[in-house]
Amino acid sequence: MILIRDVRLLESNGNWDILVEGNRIKRIGRNLLEKESIDKRDVEIIDGKNMAAIPGLVNTHTHIPMTIFRGVADDIPLMEWLNNYIWKMESKLNEELVYIGTLLGTVEMIKSGTTTFNDMYFHLDGIIKGVLESGIRAVLSYGMIDLFDEEKREKEIKNCEKIVKKIIKMDNPRIKPAIGPHAPYTCSKELLTFSHEIAREYNIPVHIHMNETLNEIKIVKEKTGMRPFEYLNSIEFFEGVKVIAAHCVHLSDREIDIIEKKSVVVSHNPISNLKLGSGIAPIPKLLEKNILITLGTDGCGSNNNLNIFEEIKISSLIHKGISLDPTSIPGEVSFKFATLNGGKALNLEVGVLKEGYLADIVLVDLRKPYLIPVENLKSHLVYAFNGVVDTVLIDGNVVLRDGKMTNIDEYKIYEMAEKAYSKLVEDVDIKRDN
Amino acid sequence: MILIRDVRLLESNGNWDILVEGNRIKRIGRNLLEKESIDKRDVEIIDGKNMAAIPGLVNTHTHIPMTIFRGVADDIPLMEWLNNYIWKMESKLNEELVYIGTLLGTVEMIKSGTTTFNDMYFHLDGIIKGVLESGIRAVLSYGMIDLFDEEKREKEIKNCEKIVKKIIKMDNPRIKPAIGPHAPYTCSKELLTFSHEIAREYNIPVHIHMNETLNEIKIVKEKTGMRPFEYLNSIEFFEGVKVIAAHCVHLSDREIDIIEKKSVVVSHNPISNLKLGSGIAPIPKLLEKNILITLGTDGCGSNNNLNIFEEIKISSLIHKGISLDPTSIPGEVSFKFATLNGGKALNLEVGVLKEGYLADIVLVDLRKPYLIPVENLKSHLVYAFNGVVDTVLIDGNVVLRDGKMTNIDEYKIYEMAEKAYSKLVEDVDIKRDN
Repeated sequence: MILIRDVRLLESNGNWDILVEGNRIKRIGRNLLEKESIDKRDVEIIDGKNMAAIPGLVNTHTHIPMTIFRGVADDIPLMEWLNNYIWKMESKLNEELVYIGTLLGTVEMIKSGTTTFNDMYFHLDGIIKGVLESGIRAVLSYGMIDLFDEEKREKEIKNCEKIVKKIIKMDNPRIKPAIGPHAPYTCSKELLTFSHEIAREYNIPVHIHMNETLNEIKIVKEKTGMRPFEYLNSIEFFEGVKVIAAHCVHLSDREIDIIEKKSVVVSHNPISNLKLGSGIAPIPKLLEKNILITLGTDGCGSNNNLNIFEEIKISSLIHKGISLDPTSIPGEVSFKFATLNGGKALNLEVGVLKEGYLADIVLVDLRKPYLIPVENLKSHLVYAFNGVVDTVLIDGNVVLRDGKMTNIDEYKIYEMAEKAYSKLVEDVDIKRDN
Repeated sequence: MILIRDVRLLESNGNWDILVEGNRIKRIGRNLLEKESIDKRDVEIIDGKNMAAIPGLVNTHTHIPMTIFRGVADDIPLMEWLNNYIWKMESKLNEELVYIGTLLGTVEMIKSGTTTFNDMYFHLDGIIKGVLESGIRAVLSYGMIDLFDEEKREKEIKNCEKIVKKIIKMDNPRIKPAIGPHAPYTCSKELLTFSHEIAREYNIPVHIHMNETLNEIKIVKEKTGMRPFEYLNSIEFFEGVKVIAAHCVHLSDREIDIIEKKSVVVSHNPISNLKLGSGIAPIPKLLEKNILITLGTDGCGSNNNLNIFEEIKISSLIHKGISLDPTSIPGEVSFKFATLNGGKALNLEVGVLKEGYLADIVLVDLRKPYLIPVENLKSHLVYAFNGVVDTVLIDGNVVLRDGKMTNIDEYKIYEMAEKAYSKLVEDVDIKRDN
């Protein structure tokens, strides 16, 4: 058992105790040591004085191994970025490099308060290994792209089935599978249909890129005569499965109707969408329809970090500036995007501190200049915080304490990542910076 | 003397030494201990291994004591924010409270790499005291508002003259005066003319709010028949003085011409402008005319922090998203806004690491997950960094070491700020959060 003592909660006065048993929150109350008659020898006590406890954050769209591409190319057109850098480097990846990139990403996420991420990538054995070692919680999908080629499709389907079965067989509470058809402009109708069927069969979510750029929408329209959401709806892609649609930057009113009626979850990725010049998702319009909005960082190639607190702040800021309305997307709402809504999106009992829920808990040290005066804490977390957290529990285990990783040697990971990056840029002959 | 050894610089390969003598950078080179035949007993050596040295950042528009208003009200319309919160609390401020707010702000700025700030506020004796104690560099102006009332004007002019003379007499290299007429919609023509004359007489910059909201532009137009920059130009406000114009959100082409021809410096405050729903400044258009762009946080009431790294990132991101052009405002450019351009704007030899320049130097610890791989460092500082710096020198003095303030007890300041805030919200009867 772990007892977090005398900690502040966001919505209540004074100091509280949180008792963790196994991987769940057993009790939240005052003076639990006395009230629950706990023998001190049975519990690890974490002093929560001058700390706030918040639910671990949920990142609903990322490609975690891309941490090792951080900063390799910015401020250039999308196709140049993909052709000359990202795709070149991705073609050289292997399980070992993906494992190293995953480790680096998990350290970054945990240290900025993210306890669950929803990922789409390849070489999943490397990702699984990294997730197991670091202690983070993940929903993993193998990203499928067939480019309308039958041979490729067969390969992708086999890979997907293998990974889903492997993750289910592992039966680890920290790793769940999802199905990852890349996007309607890169996947054939057959591959999309397969994705829908297998997701339904295993009752697991689908994770897909939707309407990120104007160009991809044009491609789908030329091919199918429909906009992407209309097309997917026409092949019954949304029937009976939970779909997490990343980006959703450019949407017609009819598409918004489909998202609403089919309960599609939106993973809003504001920083990546800004940085790649994709555009700005119409979140206020989606909120009017009570569509579930969550937040994602996207991969480190286009962000260039995995700090969800930045997404929270920007998602609240940007529509105020565009609409000239300071009441647009209050901090209260954007904070939910990254917590409660993330848990709902992934069908996990996370994103809220509640008895019976999974013990994914983050402690924030309040003795920081940017969090003072210590009041209006939710506002501070949205508008003033830099994301540096003190202590993190995931699935009932302490994975970060006093800002230091407990399971893994972070400095060794940094070294491994440096070497991996050096090898990669040599292999693809990318100009070194210095 | 201080010698920073084996540190990385942003634009050069390998490790460098930086030798500081008095308040200036004396030499930048390799193996300076040997080359300059320095006796080790004469120097304090700072190990720069695994660190990058960057120039201290410059914040060209803030109201530093407003740190103690942090988070008191968000997501509400501007006039409600001003009437029910900010103006109420400001009316209760005194020199002591302003001193405490200043101390809190300087700790926050130093810990996020800002070494110089350009401020406009009142109770300046409190600000001066805080700046002297913390070791930061500041350009201070007393904010003048006469609301077209002669009696008020006389008072403001007296206060302004008193402060300018006081600062000049102090002859402290870390504190310079500026003239702070609040804005064209709150200052009479006479007050604006006085501001221009005194700035010219003492050869010091003018710091003014310009074109922040559509409403204030309407007010000036109704009063004068001209838009704000046209009006100021008509009274020769820009002749022979350096004017730092904060905000500049809504600008006509004719106003942009005036800014260009009169070499007005723009202090771009993207986060405050978004948060208050003011709008988004047309920075790409201003860059086409080679107008000097700098960055400001504005006060903590509307941001809600003083972390200039956030302004750097957002200033590069936002126009990419709006124009759907990922090449808009590259990181290289936005980094200059906060460094080189800030120094130029304030006529200070800061914002660049250069022999002979003032020794305002920031060391960033590179062993952080979000800065790995350690390459493309400028990209990391713009797009991946959270602003937490390790060591700061200002005017040749070490004010932050290993993330801890050296001159002042930061925890004592946090306590003082808590008490000040409690008293303030009681006095004005603002609803407490918890």
